[in-house]
Order: sequence, then C-alpha cells, then structure tokens
Amino acid sequence: MKIAVINGPNLNFTGIRQPHVYGTATLEEINRQIEDEAQGLAALCSVNISLEFFQSNIEGEIINFIQRCHLDLFDGIILNPGAFSHYSYAIRDAVASITSPVIEVHMSNTMAREDFRRTSVVAPVCIGQVCGFGLHSYTMAIYALIHCIS
Amino acid sequence: MKIAVINGPNLNFTGIRQPHVYGTATLEEINRQIEDEAQGLAALCSVNISLEFFQSNIEGEIINFIQRCHLDLFDGIILNPGAFSHYSYAIRDAVASITSPVIEVHMSNTMAREDFRRTSVVAPVCIGQVCGFGLHSYTMAIYALIHCIS
Amino acid sequence: MKIAVINGPNLNFTGIRQPHVYGTATLEEINRQIEDEAQGLAALCSVNISLEFFQSNIEGEIINFIQRCHLDLFDGIILNPGAFSHYSYAIRDAVASITSPVIEVHMSNTMAREDFRRTSVVAPVCIGQVCGFGLHSYTMAIYALIHCIS
Amino acid sequence: MKIAVINGPNLNFTGIRQPHVYGTATLEEINRQIEDEAQGLAALCSVNISLEFFQSNIEGEIINFIQRCHLDLFDGIILNPGAFSHYSYAIRDAVASITSPVIEVHMSNTMAREDFRRTSVVAPVCIGQVCGFGLHSYTMAIYALIHCIS
Amino acid sequence: MKIAVINGPNLNFTGIRQPHVYGTATLEEINRQIEDEAQGLAALCSVNISLEFFQSNIEGEIINFIQRCHLDLFDGIILNPGAFSHYSYAIRDAVASITSPVIEVHMSNTMAREDFRRTSVVAPVCIGQVCGFGLHSYTMAIYALIHCIS
Amino acid sequence: MKIAVINGPNLNFTGIRQPHVYGTATLEEINRQIEDEAQGLAALCSVNISLEFFQSNIEGEIINFIQRCHLDLFDGIILNPGAFSHYSYAIRDAVASITSPVIEVHMSNTMAREDFRRTSVVAPVCIGQVCGFGLHSYTMAIYALIHCIS
Amino acid sequence: MKIAVINGPNLNFTGIRQPHVYGTATLEEINRQIEDEAQGLAALCSVNISLEFFQSNIEGEIINFIQRCHLDLFDGIILNPGAFSHYSYAIRDAVASITSPVIEVHMSNTMAREDFRRTSVVAPVCIGQVCGFGLHSYTMAIYALIHCIS
Amino acid sequence: MKIAVINGPNLNFTGIRQPHVYGTATLEEINRQIEDEAQGLAALCSVNISLEFFQSNIEGEIINFIQRCHLDLFDGIILNPGAFSHYSYAIRDAVASITSPVIEVHMSNTMAREDFRRTSVVAPVCIGQVCGFGLHSYTMAIYALIHCIS
Amino acid sequence: MKIAVINGPNLNFTGIRQPHVYGTATLEEINRQIEDEAQGLAALCSVNISLEFFQSNIEGEIINFIQRCHLDLFDGIILNPGAFSHYSYAIRDAVASITSPVIEVHMSNTMAREDFRRTSVVAPVCIGQVCGFGLHSYTMAIYALIHCIS
Amino acid sequence: MKIAVINGPNLNFTGIRQPHVYGTATLEEINRQIEDEAQGLAALCSVNISLEFFQSNIEGEIINFIQRCHLDLFDGIILNPGAFSHYSYAIRDAVASITSPVIEVHMSNTMAREDFRRTSVVAPVCIGQVCGFGLHSYTMAIYALIHCIS
Amino acid sequence: MKIAVINGPNLNFTGIRQPHVYGTATLEEINRQIEDEAQGLAALCSVNISLEFFQSNIEGEIINFIQRCHLDLFDGIILNPGAFSHYSYAIRDAVASITSPVIEVHMSNTMAREDFRRTSVVAPVCIGQVCGFGLHSYTMAIYALIHCIS
Amino acid sequence: MKIAVINGPNLNFTGIRQPHVYGTATLEEINRQIEDEAQGLAALCSVNISLEFFQSNIEGEIINFIQRCHLDLFDGIILNPGAFSHYSYAIRDAVASITSPVIEVHMSNTMAREDFRRTSVVAPVCIGQVCGFGLHSYTMAIYALIHCIS
Repeated sequence: MKIAVINGPNLNFTGIRQPHVYGTATLEEINRQIEDEAQGLAALCSVNISLEFFQSNIEGEIINFIQRCHLDLFDGIILNPGAFSHYSYAIRDAVASITSPVIEVHMSNTMAREDFRRTSVVAPVCIGQVCGFGLHSYTMAIYALIHCIS
Repeated sequence: MKIAVINGPNLNFTGIRQPHVYGTATLEEINRQIEDEAQGLAALCSVNISLEFFQSNIEGEIINFIQRCHLDLFDGIILNPGAFSHYSYAIRDAVASITSPVIEVHMSNTMAREDFRRTSVVAPVCIGQVCGFGLHSYTMAIYALIHCIS
Repeated sequence: MKIAVINGPNLNFTGIRQPHVYGTATLEEINRQIEDEAQGLAALCSVNISLEFFQSNIEGEIINFIQRCHLDLFDGIILNPGAFSHYSYAIRDAVASITSPVIEVHMSNTMAREDFRRTSVVAPVCIGQVCGFGLHSYTMAIYALIHCIS
Repeated sequence: MKIAVINGPNLNFTGIRQPHVYGTATLEEINRQIEDEAQGLAALCSVNISLEFFQSNIEGEIINFIQRCHLDLFDGIILNPGAFSHYSYAIRDAVASITSPVIEVHMSNTMAREDFRRTSVVAPVCIGQVCGFGLHSYTMAIYALIHCIS
Repeated sequence: MKIAVINGPNLNFTGIRQPHVYGTATLEEINRQIEDEAQGLAALCSVNISLEFFQSNIEGEIINFIQRCHLDLFDGIILNPGAFSHYSYAIRDAVASITSPVIEVHMSNTMAREDFRRTSVVAPVCIGQVCGFGLHSYTMAIYALIHCIS
Repeated sequence: MKIAVINGPNLNFTGIRQPHVYGTATLEEINRQIEDEAQGLAALCSVNISLEFFQSNIEGEIINFIQRCHLDLFDGIILNPGAFSHYSYAIRDAVASITSPVIEVHMSNTMAREDFRRTSVVAPVCIGQVCGFGLHSYTMAIYALIHCIS
Repeated sequence: MKIAVINGPNLNFTGIRQPHVYGTATLEEINRQIEDEAQGLAALCSVNISLEFFQSNIEGEIINFIQRCHLDLFDGIILNPGAFSHYSYAIRDAVASITSPVIEVHMSNTMAREDFRRTSVVAPVCIGQVCGFGLHSYTMAIYALIHCIS
Repeated sequence: MKIAVINGPNLNFTGIRQPHVYGTATLEEINRQIEDEAQGLAALCSVNISLEFFQSNIEGEIINFIQRCHLDLFDGIILNPGAFSHYSYAIRDAVASITSPVIEVHMSNTMAREDFRRTSVVAPVCIGQVCGFGLHSYTMAIYALIHCIS
Repeated sequence: MKIAVINGPNLNFTGIRQPHVYGTATLEEINRQIEDEAQGLAALCSVNISLEFFQSNIEGEIINFIQRCHLDLFDGIILNPGAFSHYSYAIRDAVASITSPVIEVHMSNTMAREDFRRTSVVAPVCIGQVCGFGLHSYTMAIYALIHCIS
Repeated sequence: MKIAVINGPNLNFTGIRQPHVYGTATLEEINRQIEDEAQGLAALCSVNISLEFFQSNIEGEIINFIQRCHLDLFDGIILNPGAFSHYSYAIRDAVASITSPVIEVHMSNTMAREDFRRTSVVAPVCIGQVCGFGLHSYTMAIYALIHCIS
Repeated sequence: MKIAVINGPNLNFTGIRQPHVYGTATLEEINRQIEDEAQGLAALCSVNISLEFFQSNIEGEIINFIQRCHLDLFDGIILNPGAFSHYSYAIRDAVASITSPVIEVHMSNTMAREDFRRTSVVAPVCIGQVCGFGLHSYTMAIYALIHCIS
Repeated sequence: MKIAVINGPNLNFTGIRQPHVYGTATLEEINRQIEDEAQGLAALCSVNISLEFFQSNIEGEIINFIQRCHLDLFDGIILNPGAFSHYSYAIRDAVASITSPVIEVHMSNTMAREDFRRTSVVAPVCIGQVCGFGLHSYTMAIYALIHCIS
C-alpha cells in the first residue's frame, strides 16, 4: 500500500508554532514517529505500507501533489490541510476529482478552538475525518486506510 | 485500561436502519468485532483493555451512564451520541463535568451528509473526534485512548 | 391494517393545557373519537383497521415504540411529536430507520403560532404532514394511510 | 356545502410536469377523482357537497377568485398555491381578508424537497395545512372542512 | 397637475378586509374623499389637480399602468403597492424606469405590524414614503407632490 | 392644538451638513417655513395650531422633552430622531410610554440610503411615518395630526 | 405554601462538575441550605413554606413531575432546567400548560458564559428569571414566590 | 430549430428605462438585431433557425407561454426573466416542468449591481446563464442552443 | 453596606408608562417600598444597609454615576438599565471598569416581551441578573448582594 | 485581437475529474476545439483572433498572468477561475486593477450545483459571465469580446 | 495646525479600568505624553501643532464638540469613540457632516477582543483608523494628520 | 532594529491599479519614500532601522517569508496582506506562529469600501492595525514598532 501524507501551511513550523497547542516535536520528528507506528500497524494487519511525506505552504502545490498521487496510483491520502481546511474550495475540488480515498486529519481538536476552525470545506469530499490526537491522528488514519482499502 | 463504549439513539437498529449508510451488521456483531480489533491493538501496544458496552435511546440514561463511568473510574469513554450530537447540550454538560477523556465517534462521515449533521455540540468538550470509518471509528478511538492515556 | 397513533410530550395534558389552543377534551376522549371516525372511514373504504395508542413524555420511549412498530409490522404510524417536532433529530432518525410510512400530525396550525413551531425536523422523513384540524388531523392521516397503503 | 378548489401555477401541467413527483394523471383526471372521493366522504358524513374547481397561473386572478368566493358565500376554500406558497404575500392578504376557512394543500411533501419549499407565507392565515398525499391531500381537506364547518 | 393614484392587491376589498386595520369605508368612498381633500389642498396651494384612480390585483397590470403614466406624461404617481411592496422587484424596476416622481403610501403603519411588512423593496426607488394615516396617507402624498413638482 | 416638533442629533447642523442630501437652509429657516405652511394648513382645516420646536444632540434630553410634552398635554408630537431612529430603544420606550400621538419624520428618503438607515426602532410605536420630502415631511405630519386628532 | 424545586440534568453532579463554576457543595448540601434560608425568609414574611426537591437527568421525567405539581396544587415551581434551558421546547410546553407560577433559576450567570447559554427557550413562559447567585438564586426565587403569590 | 425568446417585466421599456444600464435601442430594434446575428450564426453552423419573440409584464402569462413552447415542441427557450429572476419560484417551476432546454440571459451584468440581483431562483433549473453583454447575451445563448441541441 | 440603586431611561415614568406592564406605583413609591423590604432583609441577615437611589434618562450620566460609586467605595450596585440594556456598550464598559459587584434587574420578564428585549449587552459583565418580579427584582438583588459580599 | 484564456485550479484535470460534470475531453483537446470554433467566429465577424492559453493551480500565478496580460496589451481575457471564483478576492482585485475586459466563464452551470458555487466574488468586476455550456462557454465569451471590443 | 483629541465614554477611567488592557497611566498623564510626542513629530516635520483635549461620557456632548471643532476651523480631529464606536450612528453622522478630517483611534487592538468590538460604525466616514498601540495610536494619528493636511 | 515590510497580492501593481484609490506612485517609489520617512523617525527616536521589502502575489510565499523573518530574528513585521486580509486563515496562522510583533496596514481606509473589506481575519493576531493613510500607513507602523519594541 502506497500512502501519501500531505501537510498544509505552517505545519512545517510545528514545534516552533504555539507549542501548547501542537507540542514541541518538529515535523521531521513527527513524520519519523508516524513511520514507526505505521509499520507496527502494518505488521499487526499483515500489509505492506510505504509512506510518502509532503508539505507545502502553497495551496496550488498541494493540489499539484494530490493530482500526482492520483497519477502515481497511491492507495490513499492522509491530508492535514491546516488552515486551508476552512476556505480552500480548490483543494476540495482536487480531492473530489480523484478516486483514491482521502482522510482529513488535524492534530488539535478543531471543534474546541476558534469558531472558524469548526468548518471544513474539504471534509465533505473525504471518506472521514480524525482530529484531536496529535500525531496519532495520522496513524489512526493509516489504520483506517488499511481496513477500508484491504 | 477500562473503556466504556456508549451508543446513542437508533444505534441499536444498526443493520436494520439505512444499510447503505451503516452496513448490515447488527450492533451486537459490531461490538464483537470492536472487541476483537481492540484486543489486537492492546497486544500491539502491550496494554490490557476491558470494554463495557452501553446503548440507550434515552438522553438522560446516557447522562446517567457517563456519570457512572466517572464514579467507577473508567480510563476513557468512546461516545457515539447519534443524533444527540447535534442538540444535546445536556450530554455536552455531562461530558464536560467529568475528568475521563471522551472521544466522539460516528460510523458515517457526518460532514458529507445533511447540513444539520455537520454541527456537533458535544465535540468541543471531547478530546477529539473520529468519523467516517464504520466500526473502525471505534477502534481508532481505542487506539487514541491507549496513546493519550498511557 | 395495523396503525399506531403516537403522541409526544404534554399531549397527555390535553384538556388541561391551553384549552383555547387544544380544546377541553382529554386525550382519552380524543382517542375514543378517533377510533370512531377511523372505523367510519374504514367502512367507507372497505378495509379493516386496528389502532394502537401510545403516549410518552420521554423522547427515547417514543423511539423505542417506533422501533417496536417496525418489528411488529405495523402498516403505518401517525405521529404527533408535540414539541419534539422542533428539535428531536433522534426521533427523525428513528422514523427514517424504519420502512413503515409515518405521517406527522398536529392538532393546532403550527404555522400560525410561535416562530419556533414553524420548523419540523421530523417532517422531511415522513410521507406527509397534517396540521390545524384538532383531532381530525389524526383521522385525516388515517384516511391517507388507507389510500397510500392499499 | 359549497367548496372551492383552487390550484395555482403549473398545476395545469400535472401529468406532464415531473411525473416522479406529481404522478401522471392530468389535472382534469385528478379533479374527477377528487369529486368522486368527496361525494363518498359527504355520504359518510351525511352532508351535501358541491365543488367548484379553478386554476390559474396568474397570481392576481387567484386573488380575484378568492374574493369572488367570499362574495358568493362559499363555505370553504381548498388552496394549492403551488410555488406562490413561498412568496405571495398578496395571496396571503387575500386569504386573511375573507371569512371563509381556507386550507392550504400540496400534493407532494414540501418539507422533504428544496429548502425554499419549506416556507409557506400563506399557511399562517389558513386554518390548517395538508401536504404529501397526492390528490388525497385535497380530499383530506374536504373531510376537514366538513368537520370544521358542520 | 395630472396625478395617478394606484392601488395594489386586495385594496379593492377595503371596507371588507380586516376593518380594525383598514376601516369600513370602501375603496370608492375613500377615493371620493381623497378627491375632496386633494381639491382643498390644490386650492390652498393655487394649483390645478386632476386625479386618475387605478386598482389591480395583478402585478403586471400595475406595471403596465405605471408605464402608461410615463407615456401620458403624468406629473406624479401615488402608489400603494399593498403586499407587492414586500417582494415585487418587477414593480420596483417599473418605478425606477420612469422619470415621474413616485411616492409609496400605506394606510396602516406597516412598521407596527408583521415582520415581513417592515421591508419595502419599492421604497428605495421612490422619492419618499408615507404610512399610517389611513386615507390621509394619499392626500399627504398629494401635498408632497404639489410642493416637490411646483 | 399644541404640537411639538422635536429634532434629534445633527439636525442643528442642517444647512451645513451634506447639503446635497439636506439642502442649504438652516434649521431656523426650516422651522420658520414649517410654521408658515402649518398655519396655511390650519386655516384650510379651520383649527388653531401652536408649534413648539426643540432640538438636542443628547438622547436623554429628547426623552426628557417627550415626557414633558406628555405632562404639558400636547396634542401631538412630530419627531425626527435623526440617527437615533436606528438604535435608540430608550426613545422608543419614551414614545410608547405616553398617550399623545407621535409621528416619525425624516427629511431624506431613508429607504434609499445606507442599509442601516432602513431600520427604525422608533417607528413601530408611532402612529405613522413620513420620509423623503425635505421640510414638507414635517408639514405633512402636521396635516396628519390635524386629521387624526380632530 | 407548597413549593417545588426542580433540578435538571447534571445538577446531581454539583460539587463534582466544574467546581470553579458551580462550587464544591453537593446537591444535597445545597438543598439543605436552601431549606434553611427559605425558612428564614418565610419567618420574615410570616408565611409557611414547605419545599419538595426533585432532580432528574431525563427530560420527560421533569415534564412528568411538572404535571404532577399541577395536579397536586403546588403554589409555585422553581425550575433549574440546566442545559435543557437551551433547547427543550417540550419542557417549555409543560410549563406553559400549567397554571402555577414557574421561575427559572441558574446558579451561574449564564449570560457571561458560552453563547448557547444565552438563550433560554423556557424563560418566555416563566414569570421571571434569576441567575448568577449560586444557591441564593433559589432562595431569591422563593422570596419572589412569597411576594407574588401572597 | 425553433427557438423562443421570452422577455419579462419592463423589458418592453428598454430604450426608455435607465439608458446608461440598458442602452437606447428599443426592444423591437434589439429583436431585429438578434434576428440578424442569429441568422449569421445559423449560417456559420449550417442550421436553420426560426425565432419567436414574446414579452409580458405578467408573471402568469410568461408561464403560459413557456407551457405553450413545450406543447409546440420548441427546440429551446431563451429567457430573460427581468426582475422575476429574483423571486418567481412559479416561473422556476414552469421551466423545470418542461423538457426543452432553457437558458437564462440578462443584458446587464447582474452580479455587478444591487445585491438582490445576485440571486436567481430560475437559474438552477436552466442549463446555463449568460449575463452582461447587452443584446449579445441573447445571440450567445442562441449559439449555445445550436451546439447543445445539434 | 452601601448599595446604589440605578434606574435608566423612562423608569422615572413608572406608574405613568404602560401600567399593565409596570404597575401604577410611581418610582418614588417603589423606592420607598424597596427601602422597607431591604431593611427587613438586612435585619434578617444582621447587616446594615444604606441605599442611594439614582435615575437618569441620559446614558452618560449613568456612566458618571457608576464611576462615582466606584470612587465612593460602594459595596454593590443594582442597575436597571431600562432600554440601554439592549445596546449600550458604553454602560457595559463602565460596569466592567469597576470592581464593585453589579446586578442587572428588570421589573418585567424581558424574556417574554419583544425580541429586542431578550438581549442584554450589559449582563455579561454583571455578576447576575434578576427579571420579572416587579419591585421585588430590586430587593432580591439586595438579598443577593448581602450574601455575595458578606 | 489578442485574447487570453485562463484556467484555474483542477481544470488541468478535466477529462479525469468527475466526467459526468465536465465531460471526458482533456484540457488540451478542449483548447484545440476552442481554437477552431474561435477562428470560425472570427471569420464570421471579419476579425483576426490570436488566443493564448494558460492554466495554473496556484492563485498567485494566475494573478501574475493577469498582470502580464495587462502589460502585453491583451484585448480581452476569458477567465475560468474554477473554485477560486468563490473566495479569491485577490484575483478579483487583479481583475479590477487592469483595463482589459474580463469575462468569467464556467463549463458547468454553477447555479445548479452546491450552494457555495452560487457565489462568485470575481464576477462583480468582470463585464459579464457565461456558465453551463461546456467548452462553448469559452467560445461564447470570445463572441462577446469580438462584439464588445470592435 | 489646530488638532482636537476627543475621548469617549470610560476613557476618563483609564488607569483605573482594566489595567491589563489599557495600562495604568491616567488620561491626564496620557494626554501629557501625547503632547510631548506630538511636539517631537511637529519639529521633525517643521509644522506647528496645538492640541485641544476633550472627554465626555455623554454621546451628545461629543457631537456638540465635533460641531464646535468645525465652527472653530480645526485642521483635524482624533477621535477615540470608546464603545460608541460600535453603535453611535449619531456620532457617525456628526463626523460625516463636517469637512475636517477625522481619524478614529483605539488604544487596544479592538480586532482581537470581543466580537462586538470588531464593528465600527464611525470608521467608514473617517479618513482612517489606528488601533492597538496604546497612547501611540494618538500620536500616529497626529503624524498622519501632518502628512495628509500639509 | 530589523523590520520587514511585506506586501501582498496586486500591490506590485500600485500606480497602475485604480489610481483614484491607491495613487500613481509605483511600489518602488513608495518603498523609497517609506525608507526616507522611516530614517527621519529613527533619527527622531534615536534608533537604527534597517528595512527589508518583500512582495508576492502567492499566499504561500508570504507565509514562507513570515517564517524566514522569525528565523532571521526580525524585530517586527509590517504586513499589508492586500485581499488576503479577508480570507487567508493560513497567513493568520503564520502570524500567530511567530513571536515577532506584526502590524497590519492598508493604504486605503478598508472600512469605507466594499463590505467584504471590512473583515480582516489576520488582524486579531496582530498587535494593531493602521489603515487609510496611503504610504504613511507604513511609516506610522514603523513609528509604532519603535515605541513598542524599545
């Protein structure tokens, strides 16, 4: 199983940005831990998983990458759109235009923060949403992809 | 770890109710499969897990049960409030009044259905939310509880 | 034809509660007159009708009863959800989860009263709605069930 | 009892217009069947009923006809305002300006269709509303008039 | 000075329609008294006034008449759009498309009645508005036309 | 007949303030012309009129003056609340607390200007409203008072 | 004077639930102190007072109890609906359906907390509301009942 | 190809009405030029086109004409509903009730004018919309019909 | 204990203003009775109370007085802001800028009257709110101050 | 005439993305057909047309290109902003900042799809809008540019 | 250059009122420091500046002062309307009625506080707005006036 | 002091774009004049200032630059987000994620233009906002940074 993990704007500043919300681990460290946990889940479920990580602050580059995932036949996409979640109908259209399953994740519980974070324009075209569990949001999504795909 | 799995109104009709949305497995079968997957995850993470299942169509009984979980020192609660998610400020207050972590789950992707399902009045007082993955929504929440508690 | 007549909160206080809106007959008297009129309509249409009456002030018990109607193969349900009409998405889900036709009725013309009474969250999953005709709202619904089912 | 049955815009196209919503019977055929059912109900209730049917696509002509019903001392009016239901405050004023009871009817369950169909500006000045039962919506309203007037 | 007095839907029922709001005088009687008062004001201000009265329940005929007023070089129009005031953008456009000054009048104080009567879509393209003074609303508008035109 | 003419904030700057909206005449000149026109109308209608003019930029002083009008048995009040029209529920309460008839006037057509000027919180407790006719708005209101009182 | 004190959902958890908002006293302790203060006020006002306390997390049981208060001829009801305050039109209808005066109370100042707590659907059918004074909210309501009833 | 060109209220006043918005050509001149341009496009695309022009200020007559187009087997309809665009659900229903393709056109760019002109209740049931190009809006729609039908 | 009782606009007209809402007692009589009841409560609770009464129709003078209360070290303020309750953010700021506890009171049940009376912009910065009990609203607030301060 | 054809996000996936909405032709094929149709229209109208095509998923690059069109003296721009239509005030500002006429086009009828697609923040600064006609939306816009420019 | 510095309600309590928001300096101390900084800027820019300070809690007195500034030919006004910023259309009208440039200032960043503070009804008629910089907000406005006027 | 001056979309077109709103100076000329004025202020306040200018039409590049400012230890950022101000929650998050003070500036008075320009989603996480003073908005912000930092 080929799975893409896409992070949107400011997530490259994780560890620097508001550590009381997002923790002090850097994105690189987080990705490493996701890789580890993912392999544990893969073993448990007897599947092979290869992860590709991508981050950009530019909305259009995220769309480009989503399109590339489609062309490269990824089995699933885990997408943390960051703040784009709340207004990027363009990313929504990109997700809707491909056939790979996409899961929206957030590290923080977006429902419990500012009002504008309660609306995701991307979620309605995803297969599901996970938020509030720090980096485990990503591995839970991987767990879901394993069960939904296989 | 002692974990409660609470299901709200109409979830006892799973398997009967709109099978294209919720599948054909009964709640009992679902609970059994959650139990199985949970023990797999528990083994992977080297923890003991005991699950207690509860279902009611009556809002106040769910509040009663949440209160009992607090008094019985449960380590975590997985709550599928069903339609109460959208208006039961009373359940929200019950969740907020206890110290055990609560995770809201939904089997379907509530973001992709009717407008009224996009609002959860319970989620802001939970630690996180998982929706869209059928019965795996529950096991993903168990996975999260394992990592957040231990 | 087996038809259930379900009355929601405060309808057991009919005859006591605001008589200028709901009249002075008690619920029992109303049910008796519904029974009479129903048999007249049954004769006119050459069908057999048996009515079962149920009332509760507890939302979840109404859901329980709706589910029982489904399991007991009722041919139709006439539901006066009272004030639950305006916010009980749980009852809405119960109605949507069964296959028997459900008709929402109100004795008063809810459109002509307070603003909040103009919204029914239950009606969109019923086959139709009748309001404004006192106890005749129920018998008109029975007339409709006769014609829609047979 | 003299009862008027008024149909608003596009109802003359019933049978042509979206048959999955409105059926394939023409307005003439529907009127004939209403006449038949009405006489059955009249016999059951031991009253005489004479029906007069009117249809127009022009809002003002419907107002003119409502006014004529008042001057000709009709005992009741059954009004399917079609789409005028949602914005014609002028028809609302016409209904409010006369003393005959008026019942709003719709063949389809307007609550279960587009959002704009959920609001009726006419209903608050009617004595009641029936919707969702095809042509039986009309005969149920006749049944109501019989009981409310006599 | 040639002045048109246009009355919209249901105003031909004045005297019949809700007399506690609109009084018991018929439209004809009202027009006669407007004529009388107008001639008094004309004498006071030393101008000649000829009034032409028009009423219709049909929106489009009111537009036709407004257009004719323009072609016949009326000096001013007094328009009581009745309920069309609240939604007829078509009448608004007709008023905006001509050069004669138009004054919106209402006999009742529309601000003190139902919510929907508080919005006039026609008023923004009139030179002013008078409401609340029974038939004197019309004669006050005539007084205004005398002073604004001469 | 004793009539008060009350002007609210900034109306003492008439003639200075935006002359394209309000003209170049000062408030004093306007009052003089109102006096003249009023006496003409009084003669036409065979009544005696004495006018008392009051202006203040302070909301509470306008309330004080309205209360004094009540105690001094004025026959009517013509009130141009200026911008207070849009938010002063305190002036609204003052108007509602007295028995003399009050008419709200505006020199400009408030309906044709900024959105916030379309709402008057004072108008619902007045007997009527006149706007758009410059100083004639006041004299038209005097005309109305003569006919409503006598 | 027979007075009922009704507490809604989660109030049985007072002392456990968010102590910074509701204090650390249990409901039982609070009730005892209310009893004491009430007898002091009764002595001051020379009336006899007997209090009956009731708590439930189930909406319908609160309705049942309100109905029983009516049948048992209570002189007044003090109702803390908890979160039901914000959406239970069913409790509102129960309050409206009886003739005993009902006072809504809250221990915290609901106006100063989350937005959803600023709306009470029950208050419009009560005779008044007291909030923000801890357990004294109840005794203030008792003081009010003494003066309003006697 | 038989194509109907329907113009709604006030469009018969084109050339008279606000020439800075709509130009100075009369409707007749516009129709002639549409005819000319249409024949050019027909020649370019090698089809035969016959146009029938209709205008009315009366909503119901436009509905009547739309229905006649259906019965007379027109290949397409170009509809400029004028201000009816913004509120006539009755015309919307007429368009939805026929099978010929309908295109909504406006001569001005309705998006760049008053707020209320930004909503079309008719457009959702048309196949497309063209606005902002004066009389060319009509010929562009003809071009579209040629390509969509043939 | 030094307590200020502040009354806002139109409350000096109590007894004159809408007696069916506010009763026929004048403000002076009300103040006298508040004084009496307050001393009774003071005796019951064994505290000394001195009351200072203030009324103004001018928003800014109320702010001035609130500031003076702060400088003169009042123990508490009972504030009936009248209609200022609904829009005076300036009074809200004044209340928020001082350290004495402030209680908002209303004689009528503002929740049961016009919509605009349901919003208080002042309440969120008070310690609590009492409304609906006539002059007893004030004495209940005094009772609260006694218990909250001592 | 030099005309730019700009396509926004996801339009490079045309033919891949939801073919039931956008058809199966790729963007390249669509551009080729637009070129062909455009030359036909150019011949019909006796003008020379050269088209330049541009697509990007990145909002800022579209702005860059719009600015370059201005500097390179393009005669007109046809802009399909894709989902940017609904929120990109930055593109709106770019369009407003240049003097070349811009026409917004959409292949699908955006009015007949999800709610958020009904608002275009770009359209108010364009000269017009065409939507619903597949690739012909572009050629219709070219037809418009020919007539508006020459 | 003659510049007025106007402070609205509660600003005389600066230093007392919420010091964590507004600091501990009194208004007098702030004014002195503004004077100092202003003379520094005046020297830098080679202009003469004389400042006049005014504060009132009474809305109408602020209007009076703004009018006096106009009559006394002030070169500019710096206005901190305090909470009046959010609802005083009367002050807005006063600002709009004069020709001197007015700048709205706030010491705190109103955008980062309560929702109601995000709307200024005064700002749209000012030349600009400065907020968030404590007393420097005033001196920055002085800097702006120097450059805009000279 | 190291200060960054960041300009968002279309500001590179200043001097070209709507000169009646933004003036005719190019961005380069503006930057030069800001540099000059800034050094004057630096001299006045006895600090050293070095400015770095950045402009981009691409949202993500602005985020990248804001992040670089943080890593390069800038003392402050002056940010004119252009139209991104109204919807870019991604830029808001970038600003919130760094510790350097950020000031939002606009050359025009955004409060006095289109409605959508009145909302800034970025301002709540800045320390303040300056708008309406052309290029002086930038230098006023520099003045603020000098005083807030030193």
